[in-house]
Parts: sequence; structure tokens; C-alpha cells
Amino acid sequence: MTRKHNIILQPSGRRGQVEEGQSIRSAARDLGVEIESICAENATCGKCMVLIEEGRFEKYNIDSKRDNLSPVSTEEAAYFARRPKLLQDKGWEVGQVRLSCQCKIHGDVLINVPEESRGNKQIVRKSARVREIEIKPAIRKYLVSMSPPSLERPIADWERLAKGLETSMGLVRRGEENLPRWYDFEIDYQCLRKLSSTLRNAKWNVTVSVWKDREVIAVDPGYVENSYGAAVDIGSTTVALYLCNLRTGEMLASESEMNPQIVYGEDVMSRIQYAIEHADGLEKLHKAIISTLNKLLKQAASETFIKTEEILEVVLVGNSTMHHVLLNLHPKDLGLAPFVPTIHKSMDIKARELGLQINPSGNIHVLPTIASFVGADTSAMILAEEPHKQDENWLLIDVGTNAELILGNRKRLVCTSTPTGPALEGAHVEYGMHAAPGAIERVHIDEKTLEPKYKVIGVEGWNTDHAEFKGRVKGICGSAIIDSVAELFRAGIVDSRGKFRKDLDSTSSPKGKRVREGESGWEYVIAWADETSIGRDIPMTQQDVRQIQLAKAALFTAARTLLKRSNLQDPDKVILAGGFGSYIDKEKAMLIGLIPDCDLENVYAVGNAAGDGARIALLNLEKREEIDAITRKVERFELPTDPEFQNQFMLATSFPHMSEPFEHIAHLIPNRVVDPMARNFMSK
Amino acid sequence: MTRKHNIILQPSGRRGQVEEGQSIRSAARDLGVEIESICAENATCGKCMVLIEEGRFEKYNIDSKRDNLSPVSTEEAAYFARRPKLLQDKGWEVGQVRLSCQCKIHGDVLINVPEESRGNKQIVRKSARVREIEIKPAIRKYLVSMSPPSLERPIADWERLAKGLETSMGLVRRGEENLPRWYDFEIDYQCLRKLSSTLRNAKWNVTVSVWKDREVIAVDPGYVENSYGAAVDIGSTTVALYLCNLRTGEMLASESEMNPQIVYGEDVMSRIQYAIEHADGLEKLHKAIISTLNKLLKQAASETFIKTEEILEVVLVGNSTMHHVLLNLHPKDLGLAPFVPTIHKSMDIKARELGLQINPSGNIHVLPTIASFVGADTSAMILAEEPHKQDENWLLIDVGTNAELILGNRKRLVCTSTPTGPALEGAHVEYGMHAAPGAIERVHIDEKTLEPKYKVIGVEGWNTDHAEFKGRVKGICGSAIIDSVAELFRAGIVDSRGKFRKDLDSTSSPKGKRVREGESGWEYVIAWADETSIGRDIPMTQQDVRQIQLAKAALFTAARTLLKRSNLQDPDKVILAGGFGSYIDKEKAMLIGLIPDCDLENVYAVGNAAGDGARIALLNLEKREEIDAITRKVERFELPTDPEFQNQFMLATSFPHMSEPFEHIAHLIPNRVVDPMARNFMSK
Repeated sequence: MTRKHNIILQPSGRRGQVEEGQSIRSAARDLGVEIESICAENATCGKCMVLIEEGRFEKYNIDSKRDNLSPVSTEEAAYFARRPKLLQDKGWEVGQVRLSCQCKIHGDVLINVPEESRGNKQIVRKSARVREIEIKPAIRKYLVSMSPPSLERPIADWERLAKGLETSMGLVRRGEENLPRWYDFEIDYQCLRKLSSTLRNAKWNVTVSVWKDREVIAVDPGYVENSYGAAVDIGSTTVALYLCNLRTGEMLASESEMNPQIVYGEDVMSRIQYAIEHADGLEKLHKAIISTLNKLLKQAASETFIKTEEILEVVLVGNSTMHHVLLNLHPKDLGLAPFVPTIHKSMDIKARELGLQINPSGNIHVLPTIASFVGADTSAMILAEEPHKQDENWLLIDVGTNAELILGNRKRLVCTSTPTGPALEGAHVEYGMHAAPGAIERVHIDEKTLEPKYKVIGVEGWNTDHAEFKGRVKGICGSAIIDSVAELFRAGIVDSRGKFRKDLDSTSSPKGKRVREGESGWEYVIAWADETSIGRDIPMTQQDVRQIQLAKAALFTAARTLLKRSNLQDPDKVILAGGFGSYIDKEKAMLIGLIPDCDLENVYAVGNAAGDGARIALLNLEKREEIDAITRKVERFELPTDPEFQNQFMLATSFPHMSEPFEHIAHLIPNRVVDPMARNFMSK
Repeated sequence: MTRKHNIILQPSGRRGQVEEGQSIRSAARDLGVEIESICAENATCGKCMVLIEEGRFEKYNIDSKRDNLSPVSTEEAAYFARRPKLLQDKGWEVGQVRLSCQCKIHGDVLINVPEESRGNKQIVRKSARVREIEIKPAIRKYLVSMSPPSLERPIADWERLAKGLETSMGLVRRGEENLPRWYDFEIDYQCLRKLSSTLRNAKWNVTVSVWKDREVIAVDPGYVENSYGAAVDIGSTTVALYLCNLRTGEMLASESEMNPQIVYGEDVMSRIQYAIEHADGLEKLHKAIISTLNKLLKQAASETFIKTEEILEVVLVGNSTMHHVLLNLHPKDLGLAPFVPTIHKSMDIKARELGLQINPSGNIHVLPTIASFVGADTSAMILAEEPHKQDENWLLIDVGTNAELILGNRKRLVCTSTPTGPALEGAHVEYGMHAAPGAIERVHIDEKTLEPKYKVIGVEGWNTDHAEFKGRVKGICGSAIIDSVAELFRAGIVDSRGKFRKDLDSTSSPKGKRVREGESGWEYVIAWADETSIGRDIPMTQQDVRQIQLAKAALFTAARTLLKRSNLQDPDKVILAGGFGSYIDKEKAMLIGLIPDCDLENVYAVGNAAGDGARIALLNLEKREEIDAITRKVERFELPTDPEFQNQFMLATSFPHMSEPFEHIAHLIPNRVVDPMARNFMSK
């Protein structure tokens, strides 16, 4: 019987008994702790360094007999001798730090596996809650050293490489027949074309990039440590690209650019229309997005000082129309009843086939779509927020010109979508604008004086605090539009039906009446002409309020439909994704009935969840399978078109709602503005 | 307990008991007899017709109660009603012929499954022995009918198709989770691009072509019965293409064309040289073969009245250099020591990636290579002849400018190759020519008078029989070159060392001396000038004899090396592949020592075995796996370069051989020509 020794691994705290003479790395693996290595345990890569906390040589003493570990081998000593600076920088000494692939266990030991040596590294991401993402990329690199071919062993280049790769990957032969695993390896055709010359130039010493542990997609001379990948969120308006190190998960560059398809139509429907009406419409839309992606890839690579050929994978998300146009699939049927996509499931396509200028053998992964108006961006949002892992019922809302809603928990997820119009993003509002310097972003109205104060992007503090605001206001952005409407309601300037109260002429500023009948109806002046750069008063008009009422009614009715379908009264949490959700005042959003009633503490804004989801899918292969499986189960509901639904929609146009209590913000609702008819509903 | 009935299926004779009410097709499957069906048993494709021999309705009588089968259903009756001519042509009547998917068994029956309804059809091929090839193509077609999408069921087009395909394929759900099989289906990206419009144009009624039961590569409107594929043998000199029906195995067209690479070099070495010496050399060679393949594909399709897009797969074979150039892999290392290919294993590449103009989503399968000079053509030869399934030891020889040799049986296969020079194909012989009209193809020399007689391609009989030969002879082709040398030796005109006997001036024809000293040494005149179209005597020269001696010595020594490595004295069978083997006189080939000594009955010429192998791999998917596995096990031997080997080679230049007995043709060896030194060896 062989002797056993105790080993404890920090920081995980894993412990167990191991065989006499087993290497630390092998023992750690048996205990479920992965330690990196890409040199096939040849003491050359140094990725498996560990610190010996107890049981180690007191000094670097090869002759010592007292210690619980094998002496430092010649190879190990040579490795550290070549890197004196490494030890110096870390303050380590040889003997304290060991190569775990070389160091054998002969007694009880306490080992510390430093962050950089741990396999499956983790990054931390903040959202509705803090959570960790395991780094399990689709692409891994292995150092393969081969003996050159000879007349005696003239096996072909690919088979020579595949055999060496099997060794470097440390694969165990399979099945009863003991067949080599390398029989199953594949090599991308374009990669194969360069193989023979690369192997010879590199003197049979190469780093092999393997996709999904199966297909060789790059072979580079010598030792190459890092792989790169990009996650991309193709929005109708903005394209955002994140360049990541696939080994560490680190985000190296983040680029964004207007979606060039905007010249063919501002929203998805008008782009679908463009593709239908022009024979070369799809081709133009497709080429536009591909060339923008190539531009962003080039920028990101250049900022990171890498070549675009070093980027080996891109994960893309976008709404169903962006998804189809990216893949050069005609979006026609997305826009025509019964509204079906060409494909739901995720796709893997060679970069060269799609014309994306990364490594031509690299992979393009596109996340699955859920429905015609619930696209791969929503899939990515689910992946980032994980409603499918909750016991509570979460309501996820991604607000844009179109809003996608997901509701549910680990047992069931339902989804729908609704057009909300551009008002919530600041468009089609008289003085609306995108969030940019000069845009009013916050508004507060004193309920007694009815005088406003506001904040402007690019200027500190409130306008009432100092004079720097003079002449700097350009317009109102989305968050301030919500604010304004909510404040107009809270201050009793508009009633619960959204109508301006014409009896409020009592209040006026020295510069004139805030509430007044303007050219296109009643309005409330937020900024006087002399405070602006445009030389005109900036008001919130009856028309603007109306836009917001329609948008919020659409959103609310969609949410209520999902809740009803799930037999729920209210969601446990509301998660607002997208840039819109990040800037609005949650309380005010609820006050106008934009989101269903729930504890305000349970309303979260998570920013670009679609982009986060794309990054997660880029860094963790298992997540791709997870989201494919989840999206197959999400139930889709089209919003009904019957009169009863129309009626519900009309009730929802009221502030906060004509037939729902909205307990959590009830104290903010001014008694004087509540419609008598609404009061009837609310008392029911 | 359910009742059971007896069923007998002809012509296979399979019999067994089946459940009451089971359909004939289902019952047959249970008994191991596959009956075709591509309409998912909907009584629309008619591929499952069977003849009822006993137990059937006496008349087409729906009300009959006496019969052992279910009455003809309305759907069945409708199918036959639409095809009155079909029944008329075959002399069948409804009731006698039934759709086996519809017809249920209620009593004992005897069923005849006609040839055209049998699944896995077989074709018969002649070679060293008669054998059958099962038709199990990589591509199968399925008729899929879907209900169109609706607002209630808006599932995407691909998922709708995949679900329908699962039904049509009759797949059983897998595993404990009962996951649908269609989750695993894939669709080629370019095929996906056309999917949505095809489905709608076809009113959701399409035929789906599935590659390897996994990837959809074509979707065609309505019902399409046949799939097409091509098998191609790329020889250094000739490219041969066979267009086949993948469902029936039938060969529909056979095309051939000179290999256009000939302008860059006559043999593989000179083409490798060309690729090394010219920066665009490989590109030119590659483009030349691709454009010739496209031309042949177009010709074959046009002759068969199909579109090239209907061709869904091409299987290619060729020697390692042709293999590399086809795949645009640089052949440099094939020609430089240690002579290694870039890849051994077989490859599957999209047609569009290689630029082959079949269906762009179609597959190109290239058979595996074995060594630098033992290529995919040899793999195909193995597949066609199956030495790996024999108990006997077979020697397979493919003779060209280079000869490849395979020796062994089910336990072990060894291979080697040797350059033989172009002499055996009629090149580099003074009056040599390819086998074409005007070429002498047979020669016989009277051993008493030393007068020859010969046969010419394109003319009946021997030249001595009639006068039609006058002025028609142009040269000597390969088979006649072997004949001439063997006859010169048998008649004692050249001795066992291949030297002309100068003392034979005693014999002469009226037109002059047959054996004479010509401009470039001694020679034997086969045809006088007035018998030729070139106006010159056509002799066999000392130099020509020398060429043959070198070629046959190379071939023999290679064979002997393999035999020695396998501890064998002689092979049990010798199989000559390629055009060369088909035309030579086996006895004469043995007389000059071209092939090892064995019973002449065991020497076979099998024609284009490489082309046959390519066809087999095209028609049977399992054969591709088989040859991949076999080629991995074939042991390669390079011919040694030591002095002992050189000595063996020199001994082998003698007729038939200086140190081997050649018992089977010993009676033909004229005593007077045997070298005294050789006699010493032979008596040992």
C-alpha cells in the first residue's frame, strides 16, 4: 500500500489525501482545483507556480532530506534562473515558489495557489447583484513541441501536430479500444493551408489555438500566451464593441460608433421597409454594418497593440432585425404578420464567410433570437441578469424605440415586446435630445411656487445654485423628460389624465408665466430663453406629455399582460436594462406609471445588459449552451388587439394608472390632480 | 395479449411474427428489411410499394372482410389513381400492389419487396472478385410538409423545418430528458440564407437534403426524388469524373479530360519543382485543376439534364501531389526529404470554399493520403479491392510513372512506392505512344524464324492475316512494349541481361535484317516503314529494352522489399490496378520479371481501382470511415538506399531475375539466353 499525505490548498481551502510522490498539480486537480499549464508539464511555461506555505524547504537546499516535497529539479531551477526579475518583483524565493507540475509530494503540505496560476479565473461584475463569471473561453492555447519528421517517422504535419496537441492537452485515451483522442481533432481548412510552412519556420515549436477543444484554428510560432476576442452589441442606434483577453477575461478596449444603417431608416421597421423596397436594400444594410464592425475591430486592436489576426472569436448580439441583417438574412418576415425570424438558435460561422476582418479561421458566434421583436440582445440580457436562476419573479425591461420585456423565474419565463415610440429616448419631444452636454437631465418643480430647478449634463449642481448655466441649455434628454412629466403631475400642473390645468395661471416667474398657452397648446416653461444656447424658451408641451403617456401605457400594458399570463400581481424585482434605465429617477418613473408598482428598493438599473451578456458568452462557452436552452423555453406572447386590451391601454395612459393602486408611490400623488373617475377605480 | 401474424418477405426470405395491425413497412423494418419512404408515411411518395403475393384481397374490394390486410385506404387509392400508367407499365393492379406504409397486417402474408422499393440498394461491381456495394450515401432527401406560421405559433422558419424534418426522418427522441433530436440539426449558412423565401414560395412543402443525418445543405420546393454526386480520380495525366445518382447508385455520366497541369510538368516531381520555383506556381496548378473539374462537372450535368446545383457532393482521390494541389496546399515537402504530406486524414470542405461549382453548400470529400508518394488514389484502391478483409496476402500494384504497392491481409498492410519512369506507359521509348488508334498493342515473335506479328489498336486481327494494316502503324503502346521485350527474350534475341545477341544475323525478312545495328545501337524491327504512317521502320531498341529493365527492376525490388518485411516468399494474389494493368499480357509481364512469381491465375487486372474506390466512398458513408481507419494502420516503408539494396536492384534488372526462380513461367525461359552467372544464382 502506498503512503498517503495530507494536502491543503489555499485560498479555496480544499483538502484531501494524496498519493506519495504525486505532483502538486495532479493532486490539486484530483481535489477539484485547476492549476494552469500550457507546456504539457515540461517546466517551461511557468503558469503552474504555487507557493509552499508549510512543509517546504527552509532554504533552497537540494540535499535536504527533511522536507515534505521533492527537491527543486534542474529544470525548475533553470526556469527560475532565467527569470530572476519575476521572483524579485514578487518578493519570492526559489523553494518557496515551485512549479506545481514538477514538485512531488512526500509529506503533509499547505499550498497557496496564487491568482495568476488558477485555472478558470473569475471576474466580478456588478448588476442587480454581485456575481462572478468563470472564464471558460471557447478558445484555449496549447504549446506543442514536436520532433521534426524523419525518413524513419515520416508522419504528416497535421497528424504530428495533433498527436503533440493530445499530449499538451493532457487528454486521456477513450473507450475500450484505447483510441487516440487526436483522431477526433479537426483543423480549419484555411489554417491547414499555412500549417506546413509555420511548423518549419517555427522549428516544430508552436502555440496551437483550439476552438471548443476540437478544432485547431490558429498555429503560431513559439510560445504565445494570450488570445483575444470581441463582444459586440449591435443596437439600432449604436454599435458597441468590447475587446477582451480570453485568458484573463480582462476588457482591453471598448469602442462604439453610430449604427451606419441609420441613413436607411431610424428604427427597425423603416430599415425592414427599406430592405423590402430596394432590390439591393439588404446588401447595403449588411455591408454597412460589416464595415462598421471591421472599423471597430481595427480600432480596438490598434489601441491594444495587437493585430486583428490575433482576434480569434467575436460574439454578437442585437435585436432580431440587426441579427438578420448582420447575417445577410432578409428581415422581411420580421416585419410582416405573423412576424417570424428565419432562425432562433445560435449560430457559429467562420469569420471569413461573414467578411469580418479578424483571423479568417476565427469563429463568429451569434446569440439566439426569441421572437421577431425579442432578439439576441434580449437573450444576452437574460444571460447577464439570470432571471432563470431565481426563485423570485423578476421583470426585465429593455427600453428603446421598442421595449422587450421578460418576466419569470427558474420555473417559467414569458416575454413580449411593444413599440414605445422614440419619446422615452428624447426624440419626437419638442425640445428633446440625446444625453449630451447641454441637455437638461434632471428637473424638480416646487409644488408651492411651481418654479423649476434643473441639472444640465456637463455642469455641476442645480441651475438655481450658481450662474454658470446661463446660455448653456440646449434641450431635454430622456431622464429629464420623465422627471418633467412626473414633476408636472406631482406639482398638480397636469392632472392624472395628463391634461394641463388651465386654472393655474396664478403662479408665474418674473420672466412670465411658467404655465401658459403656447403656439401648439398648453405648456410649462422649464428654461427661459436667456438660459439657453438656442435663444428660445424650452417648455414641456401638452404634446410631449401625451407622447410619454402613450409610451408608458404601452410599456405598462405589456408588463401587465405578462403578469396576468403568469398569474402574478406584481413582480418581485424590476430590472431596467439599457442606457435609458441607468439615468431615470426610479421613483418618478413609477409615479407616472412607467413601471409596475413594487418596492422601489427592488427596482434596478443595470446599464447595457445586452453588452454584458455578449461578454459573458464570449468568455464562457457553457453560457452559450445555457442561453440556447433557456431561449427555447421562453414563452412568447403577442400583445392582443381586442377592444378589451385597447381599453386597458387607455386606462394605463393615466398617471400613474387609472385602475391600479400604485401603493409604493401613493404618498406622492397630489390629491388635487386625481381624476374623480380614477379615484373611483382606485377605491375599488 | 395481441394476436401475432406470420410474414415472409421476398426476395430476402426474411420471416417472423408481427403484431396485429402493424404496417407492412414497420414490420419489415423490425425484421431487418428496409423499405424506402421519404414522405414520412403519408402515402404521397409511393417509394414504399410492395407486392402482395399471398393473403391479399382477391379484388379491389374495400368491403371485403376475408383478407389478411387492411383495405386499400382512400389515400392509397388516390395515390394509384393519380398514376394509372405506373400500374399499367408494370402490369400490376391496385390491391396487388400496396403502399407498405399504409397497409396493415391482419393475418399471415407473403410480401414481395420489389427492387425499386428496397432501402440500401446494392450495385454489383466486378474486380478481383464479384462483390456488392451497399448504397448508404452521406446525403439523404426527406419530404417535409409544415403548417405555415401563425400569430399563435410564430416559431422561426429553421426551427419549424427542423421539427418537421425530425418527423420525416422518423427519429426517436434521445435520452432520459426526452430532448428533441432536431436540436442537434444544423443548417449550412448559405443554405439558411435562402430558407425563408424557399419555404414561402414552396408553400411549406419542401424536400430537404441532409448531409450525414446532421446538416441541412439544400431545401428545394415540392417533392424532389434524386440527389446527385460525383466521384473524381485526379491522375497526373488524366482526370476522370463519374456522375452518380446517390439514391440508386447508378452511374449517369462518365467524363474525362487531360490533366491541364501537364503544361507545368509531365510528372509529379516536375510539378512540385514548378511550384517551388515560381511564386505563383501553386496558384496556377491549383486553378488549372479546379477549372478542369468545373468543366467536367458542367459536362456531366448537361449530359444528364440536371443542373450543377443539384450535385450535392464530390468525392476526390489522387496521388499526394494531386491531393495537395487540389487543396491548394504547397506540395514542396512531398518532394523534399523526409518527404511528408501536410495531412493524412480525409477532409470535408464546403464546395464554395474550394471553388467547385456544384451546390455551394455541397460537400467536397477528399480521401486520406498514406505517404508522400502513396496518396489518396492508393487509399481508394484499397477501398475498392479490400486487401484488409482477406486472409490471403494480396499484392496490389498501381503502375504509373510512379508505382504504389500495397501488400498484406486483414492483419497487416504494408506499402511503399517507387519511381518506375515513364517507359511502362509508352513514353521515353523511341517509338512509344499512348494507347490510341495506330498503336501496336500486341507483339508475338516466332522463335524459329524470329519473324514478328502484331495487333494494332483500331484494326481487327493480326497484321499477318490481312493487308489492312499497311500504312496504319504509328508507334508502340505500353502493352506491346512489355510484349516486345518479353518476346525478344523468349525468342532468344536478347539474353537474360537484356543484351541483343549480335550473332543472330542469320535470320532476316525479305525487307532486310530484323535484328540489326541501327543508328543508336542494336535493335529489332517490328514494323517495316511501308507498314507505318510515319514512313520509317519501327524497331525496339537496346535503349528501349534498358528502360523496361530499369522500370521492372524498380517495381520488383519494391515488391520484394514489402514481401521481406512481411516475412512472405510470394503473394497469394497480385492485383494490377490502373489502365496499364488492364492491357498487358500477364504471362509476358511475369516472363520479364515485372511482377513476382505466382500462379498466373492469381494475377488480376482490375482497371481504374482508384476511380472505383472514389465511387464507393461517394455511395457509402461507412466506407469513408473504414478507409480512414485502415490508412492509419498501413505501415510505410521507404526503399532503402544502402549498397545491398542497389545490388538487389541490379540483380532484378535481369530477365526474369538473376536470383529468383520464377517457377510459374520457367518453362518459357529459353535455355540459350540464360546468363551463366544467373544460372548459378538460380540453381542455389
